[in-house]
Amino acid sequence: MLNIIILSVGKIKEKYFQEAFDEYFKRLKPYAKIEVQELKPEPFMSDSDKEKSKKIEGERILKFLDNHKDREVIILDENGRNISSVKFSEYLFGINRQIVFVVGGTLGFSDDVLKKYKNKVSLSDMTFPHEMAKVILIEQVYRAFAISKGKRYHY
Amino acid sequence: MLNIIILSVGKIKEKYFQEAFDEYFKRLKPYAKIEVQELKPEPFMSDSDKEKSKKIEGERILKFLDNHKDREVIILDENGRNISSVKFSEYLFGINRQIVFVVGGTLGFSDDVLKKYKNKVSLSDMTFPHEMAKVILIEQVYRAFAISKGKRYHY
Repeated sequence: MLNIIILSVGKIKEKYFQEAFDEYFKRLKPYAKIEVQELKPEPFMSDSDKEKSKKIEGERILKFLDNHKDREVIILDENGRNISSVKFSEYLFGINRQIVFVVGGTLGFSDDVLKKYKNKVSLSDMTFPHEMAKVILIEQVYRAFAISKGKRYHY
Repeated sequence: MLNIIILSVGKIKEKYFQEAFDEYFKRLKPYAKIEVQELKPEPFMSDSDKEKSKKIEGERILKFLDNHKDREVIILDENGRNISSVKFSEYLFGINRQIVFVVGGTLGFSDDVLKKYKNKVSLSDMTFPHEMAKVILIEQVYRAFAISKGKRYHY
């Protein structure tokens, strides 16, 4: 059974994205252990604050991952490797340990995070709002499950 | 000013995806002429019906496009070219005519459509539900606009 933490910086603010997320969460629940962990985003007022805030958020991510060392860490990053839904399914179901997906916040990932964790998957070459990325991620996890079970899933 | 038709087969059924779509539509409205056209999907009961229904839907798409010959036709297809949001923005704003994006339905595109229209853009190597693809598309059009205007758009 898939055992996944979705770690993100900040909550989903838009009601419609939260509802979309919840729908796939609900569909997955009987078949997977999914947990959502939301780290506090660091506020920033000016452009010069951004790097500092990104670094602080990065430290929060690194601390969380340090406490989950047994898990396969998958960073969602637009510079990561592109992968089809079928390959993504094969990859997920081929991992013999618990998984943590990391979704960056508004500011993206600090260099510290990107340097330490090299296993990066890209949802697209395009840049998405992080709230939408969370919806896409959980839909792809659901799809991965459907693919692995040969389940009919119309889209 | 961008002048875009988003042509799709079928409506968005999920309320949350429709609301997400509407939000970006509303944000774009002052800056672009966007029109949504939804063709009737063809029902299918069995796997053997699928090809026939896909072909019929394809004929509807081709007929629509025949009536909009002056437009740049962009097929959204996972086998299309991957493109970053910045390149997508440059591409969109470099087109000197009206545009029609075509989003397939549950069944995808018929060979007739894929053969006739070669200009294909991929949102991702992953397969998305067509409803979600419409949300991603309009968010990227909004982002393209924000990029071209140097507008601050936090994500």
